[in-house]
Amino acid sequence: MPLAESVVREIAAIVGEDHARTDTAARIAYSYDATFQQYPPDIVVSPATTEEVAAVVRVAHREGIAVIARGAGTSLAGGTIPVDGGLVLNLARMNRLIEIDVANSCAVVEAGCVTAHLQRAAEQAGLFYPPDPASLEQATLGGNVACNAGGPRCLKYGVTKDYVLGMTAVLADGRVLRLGGKLLKNVTGYQIMQLIVGSEGTLAVVTELVLRLRPLPRVRRTAAAFFLRIDDASESVAAIGAAGYLPVAVELLDDVCMRVVEEHAHLGLPADAGAMLILEMDGNDDAAVSAELGAVAEVCRRHGATEVRVARSDAERETLWAARRGTNSALARLRPNRIGEDVVVPRAEVPAMVRRLHAISAEAGLPIAVFGHAGDGNLHPNILFDRQREGEMERVEIAAAAIFRAALALGGTLSGEHGIGTLKKAFLEEDLGPDTVAVMRAIKDALDPKGILNPHKVFPDAPGPAPAGFLATLPTLDGQLPG
Amino acid sequence: MPLAESVVREIAAIVGEDHARTDTAARIAYSYDATFQQYPPDIVVSPATTEEVAAVVRVAHREGIAVIARGAGTSLAGGTIPVDGGLVLNLARMNRLIEIDVANSCAVVEAGCVTAHLQRAAEQAGLFYPPDPASLEQATLGGNVACNAGGPRCLKYGVTKDYVLGMTAVLADGRVLRLGGKLLKNVTGYQIMQLIVGSEGTLAVVTELVLRLRPLPRVRRTAAAFFLRIDDASESVAAIGAAGYLPVAVELLDDVCMRVVEEHAHLGLPADAGAMLILEMDGNDDAAVSAELGAVAEVCRRHGATEVRVARSDAERETLWAARRGTNSALARLRPNRIGEDVVVPRAEVPAMVRRLHAISAEAGLPIAVFGHAGDGNLHPNILFDRQREGEMERVEIAAAAIFRAALALGGTLSGEHGIGTLKKAFLEEDLGPDTVAVMRAIKDALDPKGILNPHKVFPDAPGPAPAGFLATLPTLDGQLPG
Repeated sequence: MPLAESVVREIAAIVGEDHARTDTAARIAYSYDATFQQYPPDIVVSPATTEEVAAVVRVAHREGIAVIARGAGTSLAGGTIPVDGGLVLNLARMNRLIEIDVANSCAVVEAGCVTAHLQRAAEQAGLFYPPDPASLEQATLGGNVACNAGGPRCLKYGVTKDYVLGMTAVLADGRVLRLGGKLLKNVTGYQIMQLIVGSEGTLAVVTELVLRLRPLPRVRRTAAAFFLRIDDASESVAAIGAAGYLPVAVELLDDVCMRVVEEHAHLGLPADAGAMLILEMDGNDDAAVSAELGAVAEVCRRHGATEVRVARSDAERETLWAARRGTNSALARLRPNRIGEDVVVPRAEVPAMVRRLHAISAEAGLPIAVFGHAGDGNLHPNILFDRQREGEMERVEIAAAAIFRAALALGGTLSGEHGIGTLKKAFLEEDLGPDTVAVMRAIKDALDPKGILNPHKVFPDAPGPAPAGFLATLPTLDGQLPG
Repeated sequence: MPLAESVVREIAAIVGEDHARTDTAARIAYSYDATFQQYPPDIVVSPATTEEVAAVVRVAHREGIAVIARGAGTSLAGGTIPVDGGLVLNLARMNRLIEIDVANSCAVVEAGCVTAHLQRAAEQAGLFYPPDPASLEQATLGGNVACNAGGPRCLKYGVTKDYVLGMTAVLADGRVLRLGGKLLKNVTGYQIMQLIVGSEGTLAVVTELVLRLRPLPRVRRTAAAFFLRIDDASESVAAIGAAGYLPVAVELLDDVCMRVVEEHAHLGLPADAGAMLILEMDGNDDAAVSAELGAVAEVCRRHGATEVRVARSDAERETLWAARRGTNSALARLRPNRIGEDVVVPRAEVPAMVRRLHAISAEAGLPIAVFGHAGDGNLHPNILFDRQREGEMERVEIAAAAIFRAALALGGTLSGEHGIGTLKKAFLEEDLGPDTVAVMRAIKDALDPKGILNPHKVFPDAPGPAPAGFLATLPTLDGQLPG
């Protein structure tokens, strides 16, 4: 049911005619994210200020219109899909980096500021914003906060939640909260800010952030360790941690990932390797960092690494990381379709989880490529398939469920950094238990009693409707967007 | 109104006769904490397991009895005071360190486990639990979590919230939540665990924790820098951060604190110094750590340090820290009474805040000793007074309010690590604003509709009643407990 013309006019009066669009092109452009789902919104609204966001949300609240906040639409869990239509609140215009405050080691940004933009500005000031999701060149900091985004460097430096010092957020009824500030410690009242971090747009719309910055390490050293058997690589991951080393990152790539990365980036990876680890250490003292990287390499050799190559220049280092970040999109070439999972297990269970993934792949008769942030137990098994093939989707669903349950059986969880969105909500209660989901729902109902903020996400309630008619005929977008 | 005999019997049947006490001795023993307040509970219950906690809470919920969870009673904000009687849930018996899991770099503890106990056990395993509140030899990890405790090392390593990976918590109606796990990343559902951290026992009773451990740094170097003027010391604090150094700790002590510490610990501190900083760096490489400490010392010298002494042994280092941790209790000798505040300002505003504290001291005609974790802007101004003296309490209250408002005016907050408890609740709304307090209240009402968990705390609602008759005649305990 399209919005009443009077409501469209009221919203256009707040943000300007050009920023309240109901035309088909806009509705298609904001109908999808980096998953394979597609549902059109009724209106795409692009506010320029927190006050405009609040005014738009007040209208939506009064009218009972769903509000789906959206950054760059890089969600891998369907978090920004307008499942039931409604109002996409596109925060792309609120992309200002307001301030790098060197004296207080923090940045003030609007929610639509792109992650890499902040990272480069911070580095120019001798500072460092560690969280580094693979989509950092597209994704926004507001989206990072909504999903509590991670990335390789989170092993040493923590995830997005550990960097949020202050926040401006708009509640479902349009009230504006200003939380925290340029403060490294703050125990005044409940951690409302942390409750909003990771709530995937279901509790509030984040419009502005104060983010902690760290001193930029003067030295970074990166190495790649190669193994004939993936078991040896994953045993090395557990052994590095048990030996008391905390690298910046310990990234695992299996043979399938290595092959597509090699085809794409021509790194000269050994053709016979069954897996590799990318290892990074940082610090301020060259000799000390090199010595630590050497010690970690030695742990890998003791666990079967056939070769450890240390990047000899920043360019070599950057090539390695670019290849790693490109694994997602490189995998898209192997099969027409792909689902990237995001499970976490206790670090010591990484070897067991990798073995289970191989078993699940064999049972389902589908290739599962494995890569991920193995150092913190966060793996991205990618199920590769062709949805046109008879019966393949059913096997994908069986394999995905088996992956979730394998992680849970090992003391793990459904998602380490992508979030629940629409894709995993059916499994939420199996992971958290009914009482925790009931507590979540009680909080949701207390803060958004009309349920207008990002409905049909996270909670395992009503499934969304089928895609609207005019989109059902479009080709799916799977695999064509950066992952 | 004492509890019905049948209810006491029902509770005793859950925890055992010896662990459900209504005698006067027990009621006095659990009537106070490290503040100057004193109200007796109706019953002191000491459960041994999460199941016993849940069963006791279910009875309290049914009967509408207040439940005040209590660790070691070291609260500096009145967080464990049974303001309106009720049931003190003493978690001291649940003090087990269940597991140090080296492979997953974490510990599993019961809520009553003493912080220092975990720290020593972790160090023996080559691991490290950084949060270090001054009361770490008495305080419990459950209490640390309830208050989101800090300490000197939190500058580099973060506060308690950054170490909570998993939690068992009992809700107001006795339901048991098992949250998180041995997982370094976890974005499945809302951050209920973080909502409970810092909620001061008003949302749930924490009974068990999974806490992250880090690799134990192999090298620690500590120095003391002395300044003639406190302004130079606080300017150095801001300059160290702006120069891109992140020490483990940057602790400030003013001349008053230095004098009492010197009398107590005989460190040979320069008698003419107006302030000192304790600086600590750590890492794995001796030369690198020493070089960084030297660079930070140089920043201090450029900002007026007259002398920087580096601790030459672990014993010297320990002496310095013991003195720092003892500042609270050493200050208690100066005047009969003392209120230790806990404000935070942006780091760059530390010099301005120190100047305002001196002005407030002069206006109130009361000495205010200043020490604290200046590196993260968290200061503990201690107002020294004699409550027997005519009109002195009124001036203390005026000075305390002026301190809060000075912090807020500089973009700061009421509390960095002690919490709100009873002592600061009147100022909560002035700090957070009415909308944020309304959100807190909505969450509280959703999770604890009967309001049985730690009533009269945090929220600026009804003031507590006057102390019960039999305690009103007792001497106050101010200054006689570890701070």
